[in-house]
Formats: sequence, structure tokens, C-alpha cells
Amino acid sequence: MPQETITLGRYLFERLVQKPLDINTIFGVPGDFNLTLLDKIYEVENLKWAGNVNELNAAYAADGYSRVKHSLSCLVTTFGVGELSAFNGLAGSYAEHVGVLSVVGIPSIDSQQKQLLLHHTLGNGDFTVFERMTSNITQTTIVLKDAHNAPDEIDRAIREAYINQRPVYLGFPSNMVSVEVPADRLKTPLDLSLPKNDEDAQNEVVERVLELISKAKDPVILIDACCGRHDSTKEARRLIDTTNFKFAVTPLAKGSTNIDESHERFTGIYVGSLSYPEVKSAVESSDLVLSLGALLSDFNTEVKQDPESKISQQWLWTRLSKWLKPGDTVITETGTSSFGIIQTRFPENVFGISQVLWGSIGYSVGATYGAVAAAEELNPEKRTILFVGDGSLQLTAQELSAMIRAENKPYIFVLNNKGFTIEKLIHGPKAHYNQIQPWDHAKFIESFNPKNAETHSVHKVKDLENLFNDAKFAKSDKFRLIEINLDEMDAPINLIEQAKLSEKANAQN
Amino acid sequence: MPQETITLGRYLFERLVQKPLDINTIFGVPGDFNLTLLDKIYEVENLKWAGNVNELNAAYAADGYSRVKHSLSCLVTTFGVGELSAFNGLAGSYAEHVGVLSVVGIPSIDSQQKQLLLHHTLGNGDFTVFERMTSNITQTTIVLKDAHNAPDEIDRAIREAYINQRPVYLGFPSNMVSVEVPADRLKTPLDLSLPKNDEDAQNEVVERVLELISKAKDPVILIDACCGRHDSTKEARRLIDTTNFKFAVTPLAKGSTNIDESHERFTGIYVGSLSYPEVKSAVESSDLVLSLGALLSDFNTEVKQDPESKISQQWLWTRLSKWLKPGDTVITETGTSSFGIIQTRFPENVFGISQVLWGSIGYSVGATYGAVAAAEELNPEKRTILFVGDGSLQLTAQELSAMIRAENKPYIFVLNNKGFTIEKLIHGPKAHYNQIQPWDHAKFIESFNPKNAETHSVHKVKDLENLFNDAKFAKSDKFRLIEINLDEMDAPINLIEQAKLSEKANAQN
Repeated sequence: MPQETITLGRYLFERLVQKPLDINTIFGVPGDFNLTLLDKIYEVENLKWAGNVNELNAAYAADGYSRVKHSLSCLVTTFGVGELSAFNGLAGSYAEHVGVLSVVGIPSIDSQQKQLLLHHTLGNGDFTVFERMTSNITQTTIVLKDAHNAPDEIDRAIREAYINQRPVYLGFPSNMVSVEVPADRLKTPLDLSLPKNDEDAQNEVVERVLELISKAKDPVILIDACCGRHDSTKEARRLIDTTNFKFAVTPLAKGSTNIDESHERFTGIYVGSLSYPEVKSAVESSDLVLSLGALLSDFNTEVKQDPESKISQQWLWTRLSKWLKPGDTVITETGTSSFGIIQTRFPENVFGISQVLWGSIGYSVGATYGAVAAAEELNPEKRTILFVGDGSLQLTAQELSAMIRAENKPYIFVLNNKGFTIEKLIHGPKAHYNQIQPWDHAKFIESFNPKNAETHSVHKVKDLENLFNDAKFAKSDKFRLIEINLDEMDAPINLIEQAKLSEKANAQN
Repeated sequence: MPQETITLGRYLFERLVQKPLDINTIFGVPGDFNLTLLDKIYEVENLKWAGNVNELNAAYAADGYSRVKHSLSCLVTTFGVGELSAFNGLAGSYAEHVGVLSVVGIPSIDSQQKQLLLHHTLGNGDFTVFERMTSNITQTTIVLKDAHNAPDEIDRAIREAYINQRPVYLGFPSNMVSVEVPADRLKTPLDLSLPKNDEDAQNEVVERVLELISKAKDPVILIDACCGRHDSTKEARRLIDTTNFKFAVTPLAKGSTNIDESHERFTGIYVGSLSYPEVKSAVESSDLVLSLGALLSDFNTEVKQDPESKISQQWLWTRLSKWLKPGDTVITETGTSSFGIIQTRFPENVFGISQVLWGSIGYSVGATYGAVAAAEELNPEKRTILFVGDGSLQLTAQELSAMIRAENKPYIFVLNNKGFTIEKLIHGPKAHYNQIQPWDHAKFIESFNPKNAETHSVHKVKDLENLFNDAKFAKSDKFRLIEINLDEMDAPINLIEQAKLSEKANAQN
């Protein structure tokens, strides 16, 4: 009896669907050299094609998907023009340790050997230049060359991406898609034993903290709520004992962290301006606050707002705490949103995404497509909530059309502050280059002909209160865009301070 | 008397405005490390900032601008996130020999030396990785390091980009923007003596043609109208004498190329199906037609269309010939448009742009911004006309907002054939991955709040005839988008044939 076979293209996708990878959506854009590979997606049960609008957005989406699935994602682009457009997205996944299998449909081996093809090449007959460039922003690069070992190579690509949680390049020649390989292989699970902590990342953080400590004259440790929530109270106590620093706790931490209040270096309960004067002075006069498990919103929950007043970031991020629900995924764009969300108290099991290190503007919109696809696969009622500025949105805005096409049901909160406020804070508050064309966001959504969408535009506190208090609005049963109109220079206080530091660093010689 | 000085940032931009470069628009996106550099643009007379919506689009725009100005263009992005997003655009300029000075605002030298900054890096302290990657798609890379030789290095970067007509990378540390350099230098013009023909490109074409000739059993030379228009009749005659191939001429070439009709190998006048049978047979039975100065529309100008019939590509591209005017710039997207335009007869002094070799989908929309900026600088009444498919438009669509913000007045013809027709022709005519979300293009434009725009949507021949016969429509005094609704699989015949070849090449081992 002859051995059962399947095509190599199908083999790749069957592998990706298997547990624990559990990938059900493939991101990317069709192109000359990947079309027959894309056909194989439709042969695999529980697998669908996302149909992104461009490759950069697709790479962002793959990043968001991988984070929410806590697994891996797969991006398919085409040789040259496609893969290069995805570079910035892949570099972000590399910098932030996100596992993405980047499959690139490349010319057939025959074309490469004959160097016949000019289309999509640099015109110099060099077919390996893009792979070489990619090697700087991927864990490893693998090109399928030989039908005999191709399944092994595919398994290796998946394993490297998963174990290292970084992008891996897999070059898939168009003529190898239909090569037949033994189907039996799929019965042997992939070896995906988990990696140790990333030492580089850990060392970076430790070095940075040690450097700050070595410069500080009067440091204080401030223990906040997340210290208990993330089960690190023991480590906090060891830090107090090792450093001999004085320490304080916040009201929320007081109840949950079991800190010894009779300790000789215990300073008291810190509640910002409501603290006892000696505690306030001890914390605020310190030149270094080692804040453990910070939940900055603790300081702000007493903010009351006149319903008729304009919405401010200060109020928004605190108020948001009460609208969030366990299980939500919250994506925030680099800028006012990623700083503001620090003030928001998350309920249990809320997953936050922000591209903090790489910080590519526009990332969050693409990532939301991946996140909402992943979240709805995990549980159709799971909510995916994006906060993005009007400026950042413009970079990748058309990916909202892809989510509408896929019938996803995210909440898109557009913080309309009329331009690139984060850049204005760093430099050029009135500069022409930090201004943007003002869009009509409702009409923008309408132009995509959505079947099931609603849009809102809110100015006052009471407008947003009405939405946040509406049980129908709370149910993620349609695509929603909510424009929040803010003052142009309104920003979270921590962002304003960070921006000052950035400008100073740029100017230094 | 002390020497007069200017800042290094301003020095760069003053150089770019000088003749013969004559750059009046700078393309790019603001970011942390280029803000102070952007300030200098506003200090220079006759220079403005384009304010692109994202970096890929900005790179496409810079490419289009450089082509129309027949000079050079300047793109400004920011370290890491910004420059990587522009890679695909720069690679296209590299492949197609377009001069672009790619200025990247990079961290201050101090930050680099201390390796303090994590933001926008890959997290490994390597600040040179992006420059290294860029070196694959640029003529050369230059980083300003030393105030003393920085003006020389800037001059060198400009010269390399101009002379080689390829992208050059110029890394500009944020702390060097305000360094003072002697203003006197600007009085010495740059050495921009022109380059020889590009031998690689020429050799590529020659090799391809020779290969076809060596395989052909019964070749024929067909001399068409552009042979006279572009003053290459002498070369055509030498080709006839050298090869000893038979030859024919088209009716238009007959009048303008002064070909010897008494020559022993002269076959006759070729007019497609209207030819004498022996001429028709001699040309069409040949296995290789060496078509010189082709104007395929010659065969099609007799097409008459019922005004009530649906618009077809066959009719559209021929009819367009009569609407075009001397001085127009016509940009066509890779796909049905770039193939279709071959059938259009251009009046004198019409400049065509199509990214034929690199072929990145979405290029034309970004390039149109650059082209229209350049054309309007040359003459405010010059028309810039884009033809783009509905699928390709989606990749870079938001750049239309940037043109609206800049108050440019292009014609955007959207060929709405409901998806990626070129990919459908290559593979998967019914495949989900070749379908797209249908957009309401009029509403899409409205969502950008244009001050002076109009949109049209035409289905029938008479609808487009009405526009083409309207003198007001012919005047480029506002932003216009014209949606042309076509059948899904309608395409120029030459594209259908090319697509068959592409699918075959992909499948070969």
C-alpha cells in the first residue's frame, strides 16, 4: 500500500493549526509568487485568510495575533515588494520578542538559477538580497530548496519562531508548493518545549535600574497594587531587606501585599496629596522612587467631573477603569494612549498590548486586526478595544476596512486631538509638520460599506458617560468607532514629562 | 570680520533648492529624531514640507517627484521605525534608477556612544543595523559624524544620488542639525556633471532581446510611429541591415520614418486586420516581432462604441488618447493600467510614469503626490493624471488625504473592477484572497473634508464621453476622483497574455 502524501504547502498550514500553536488565521497580502500557496489555506480545516490591506498592516496584525494567542502567528507576503513593506512590522516583533513565522513566496528555483526574472528584483540578478536584509530582524532565515528535507525545515522554522518568540523568515519557492510529502509526519507533534527567560531583556532592565540606583542619593521603594496581583510581594520584601532603602505603600497595596508596617524603615501610606505630610515629603523629596507594581490610577480615582465639561485625558483614563471587563484586550498606540493607559486600573485577566520599545506609529491599528481575530477565536464575546490618536490612525487607517470585511467587532476609540500631539510635546507645538488633515471619521467608516457598524463622536463627559453606562454598547456585537474630541495639547502628565526628556536627549552632543 | 555661518540643517536644504536640482518640496513623516531638522525647511525660500501620511507613501512620492522634475528628490524619515517603512519605496527607486536623497534623522552621537537609547532600536545596542540594511538598496550610505567635514559629506550625498540616479542614505544625527558651518560654501555650485548611460540596464535589455532573436526562426521587424518621434530611424535602418530580417511599417511610421519601401526585404504596410493578406501573413505568422517605437493604439483607433454600452478597457485606453494634452503627466499602476496605457497614443511632451520593473502595488498613488507637486511647481496648469485599480488603491489610499491637504489638483481615475484583477488573471480568478472590500470612493474622499474636490462615478461610454468632452472638466482646477466601473475580468489583451506566462513560470521546477 503506497504511503499517503499531502502537498508541502498544505503541510505547512496543517502544522500551524495543530495544538499548542492553534493558529486559525493567516495574515498577509496576495502577490505573484504566493498565490498557489494561499490556495492551500482553504484546504485546511479551521484556517482562514485575513486579507490585509497592505503588508505593513499585515505584519502589525500578525504581531497582535501572536500576542493575544500567546503562541505564534503566520504572515505570508510575496518576494521583494511584499516582504520589504513588512520590514518595519517584523522589526517591531523582533525588538519586542513576538513570535511570527514570516513566509515569503519566492520565485521558482528554476527562475532563480537561470536569473531570468527581472520583475520585483533589483535588476542585478541577486535573488538573495532580501533574505540577507531580513536576517537582521529575524531569529533565523530558512529557504526551502529540496523536497526531501523541506518538511524538516518547515518544522525547524516553526520551532525557532515559537521557542525564541521572534520572527523567522521562511522562503517558499512557488514551484515547491505542490510537491508531495508524507502525510504521516503530521502525526508526530512538533517539539515546542518552552524557552528560559530572555536574559538580554532581563539584563537590560536590571542594568538600567542599577544605574539609576547608583546615582540616587535618597531612594524610596513604593509598593503598589500590582505587587500583590502579580504575586511578587516576597520579592518586594527581599528588595527592602537587601537595599536598606526606606519604603511606603499605597492604600490598595496595603490590603493585598502583607507588608510589615512595624518595620523600622516603613514610612507610611502614600496617597499623593492626601498623604500625611511626613509621608508625602519622604516620598516626593526622594530623588528616586522605585515603584513596584504601579497602578497610577490610585492617585486619581477621586477625580470628579462636571458632566457638561469637555473630556480630558486625565478623566478619560481613570473613568475607563470602570468600563473595562475581565477578559478584555486593550491595545494602545504609542503616544498619549500608551501613556494614558498606565493610569487605568485593569480588572482581572485584561490583556494589554502596546508596542512600547519599538514604538512605530500606526502599529496599533494593524495590531488590532490581529488581536481581534485571535480574541474572537478564543471566545466570540471577548472584547478588543483600541485607543489610537487621530494622527497615528492615518498611517494605517485602511486596515479598518479589512476588519469590516472579516466582520470583526472591535471598539476603535479615536482620540482626536488634531495632529501628532506626542511630537508637538517633544518639539514644534505649532509646527506645520505636526499638523494633519482633519478627517470625518464617521464618513471614513461609511466609505467602507460596512454591514454592521456604528460610529459616535463625543465631546463632553456626559456623552461618554452615556455610552459607558449603556448595556447595549458594552456588548461587542458590531464594529464600533468612537471619536473622542480632546483639546489639542491635552495629554497625560507622564507623557508631558517624557517628551521633555526626549527633546533634551536629542539636543545633547 | 567674522565669517558668516548657517546651521548644517539649513545648509542641506539650501543646497537642494539650488539649480539645477531645483527641489521645492521635501517628502516624509515627522518623528522623534528629525523634528529639529524639519524646522530648517521653513527657513529656506521656495521650499515646503509635503507632510505625507506614512513613510512608504512618502518614499513613493519622492520617487514620483524625482521622475517628473528629472532631477532628484528628498525624503526625510526617522531612525528605525520610519526608515524601515520606506524600504520598499526606496528599493523601487533603486531598481528603476530614480535619484532620491533619503535623509534619516538618527539619535545624537552622544546617545549612540553611550548606547543608552532603547526606543526604536532592536534592543541590542546596535545603532548601525538599519544603515547596513539600507546599503543593499542605496548607491551609498553616509552618516554625518564630524561638523568639520559634514558640508562636504552632504554635497557628496547629493552628488552620488543625482549622478547615479539612485537612492543615497544620509544619516543626520539630531544634535548636528544646529551646528554652524560657513555660509560661503553655498556660493560654489555642486559638481553635478551627468552620468553615462547605465550599462547594466542596457545590457539586460540587449541580452533579453538577443536571447529571443536566437530562438526565433522567422523574425520580422515592425517599425511604428515612436521610431520617428524619438529620432531613432537611423538605428532602425541599421538594425534592418545588420540582421537581414524582413520588415514592415505601420501607417503612422510610413509618414514619419523615411523607410526605403523599395528595399528587397520590405514586406509592406501593416494595419492589423486591414492589411493586405500577404503582409498580414508575413507579420502574424512570424515567431518574433521586433516592434520598434510601438504605438499599439494604431490598431485600435477604428473602434466605435455604442454610447449606451458599458465601458471596456479596450475602448477606454484608445479613447484616452484624444483627451490627453501636451504637457500632461500620466501615472499608471502596475496591473491593468500599466498594460492598458500602452494602447494610448500620447500627444507630444506627455510624460508617463509606471513602476514597470519593481512593480510594487500601491506605488502609483504615492507617486502621484510627488508627481503632482513637481508638475505644479513646473507649471500650475500642468495636469497630473493617475490610473489605478480599486484593489491597488487600498494599499496606499490615505495619501489622497495628503494631496487634499496640500491643495494639489490631480485627476484620480479609479478603475473599479472589484478586486485584484491582475492576480486573478495569473491565478485564482474566484479566490477569496483576490477579492477586496468594496469601497464607496466618493464618500472616501468626502471623509477627508476636502475644500475643493469633485467625484464622479461612470458606468457607460456616454458618461465618460460627457466628461471628456467637458471643457471645465479638462481644466485641472480642483482635486478630482473619477471611478470607472468595469467588468471584473475585463483587462487589456496584452495583460491577459502576460499573466498566462507568469503562472507558467511560477509552476516550473
